[in-house]
Amino acid sequence: MQISELSAVSGVSVASIKFYRREGLLPPGIATATNRATYADHHVRRLRLIRALIEVGELPIANVRAVLAAVDNESTTLHDAFGAVMHSLDPAPPADPSDSTADAEIIAVNEWLARRAWQVEPHAPAIRTLAQLLVAIRQFDFAMSITDFDEAADLAEQTAYGEVAYARATTDRASAVATMLIGTVVIERVLVEIRRLALEAVSARLEAEVREP
Amino acid sequence: MQISELSAVSGVSVASIKFYRREGLLPPGIATATNRATYADHHVRRLRLIRALIEVGELPIANVRAVLAAVDNESTTLHDAFGAVMHSLDPAPPADPSDSTADAEIIAVNEWLARRAWQVEPHAPAIRTLAQLLVAIRQFDFAMSITDFDEAADLAEQTAYGEVAYARATTDRASAVATMLIGTVVIERVLVEIRRLALEAVSARLEAEVREP
Repeated sequence: MQISELSAVSGVSVASIKFYRREGLLPPGIATATNRATYADHHVRRLRLIRALIEVGELPIANVRAVLAAVDNESTTLHDAFGAVMHSLDPAPPADPSDSTADAEIIAVNEWLARRAWQVEPHAPAIRTLAQLLVAIRQFDFAMSITDFDEAADLAEQTAYGEVAYARATTDRASAVATMLIGTVVIERVLVEIRRLALEAVSARLEAEVREP
Repeated sequence: MQISELSAVSGVSVASIKFYRREGLLPPGIATATNRATYADHHVRRLRLIRALIEVGELPIANVRAVLAAVDNESTTLHDAFGAVMHSLDPAPPADPSDSTADAEIIAVNEWLARRAWQVEPHAPAIRTLAQLLVAIRQFDFAMSITDFDEAADLAEQTAYGEVAYARATTDRASAVATMLIGTVVIERVLVEIRRLALEAVSARLEAEVREP
């Protein structure tokens, strides 16, 4: 198909396709005699993954490039490709590597992961982010530690099986990674909204108890 | 205390304090003979709430103003003040009110809330946001509906009692709202990170099963 048809099928504008080409995110089409290029189905799948990374994952171009490299490198496992996208969702670690405010919590998080037999890359950004959030919780005088989230972790683990298996069952690596990313980002936002609704509902109940004891 | 001491106690720069004064977010201090102003403890609490709204809640100034108005209006309940801050966390509804793509899901969400006896303001943005996320989930071919999140909702409701009661137990409205906001935003981020770790851990397990069946 030509670039106009690729645009129609993928829902990505011709200008964006050209931008992704220039940035090296989309491989070239096959050049034809008329100095045009024809594109194939794998370009459509690639474009869908790029849009998912940018629009759903809100990843900067540099991170999109890193994820695509992991997807393209067929010598890595699908798990490694998932890891590349999961790890790029979290903000970068602090520029100052000597920042030690979260060190004690990082140890606590790692011990907690070991107790749960959750095998996670030691450099997974979620470990440091979680530790920093636990520091923040304590700074705001909330008496909570990582073990207060055991029940939430049980539920997350239980539902993760369905989500990861669903992503792995897709036909190609690009689709599997796109599915994993979309599932991760969209479902975590669903859970955030449900939590906010629960807080509002419970706040209404506690207010009513004060007024009509 | 003078502005320099207010800055030291609250950890907010003098320049930011002056900005919040100009924007009407911080009430004036009491003018002294020397053409200066003295500030009191309630200014410190107000500054903490403003910083929590801006830095933790990432609210724009207009939303900060709306939340502070709800906190200041003592004729409203604490629940209404909580509602003001919770509702300002979600993005604004679509500019085009005739956008009906999520209408069916909004009905489904409202029925689900009624079944759970979760009393939520009909205009709570989380209802529309949740409906739009459910539309997105279906667009990406995930076979999930709101009832797939029942267990997550049970857990959210259960933990909400502790969080709301903790916020209500603080001494004044500004502190209660700050606590509610910080608890909501920080803890929801903790849960997101735990979910990401769970997905990575489960992905590692499923990958290992493929390699060493």
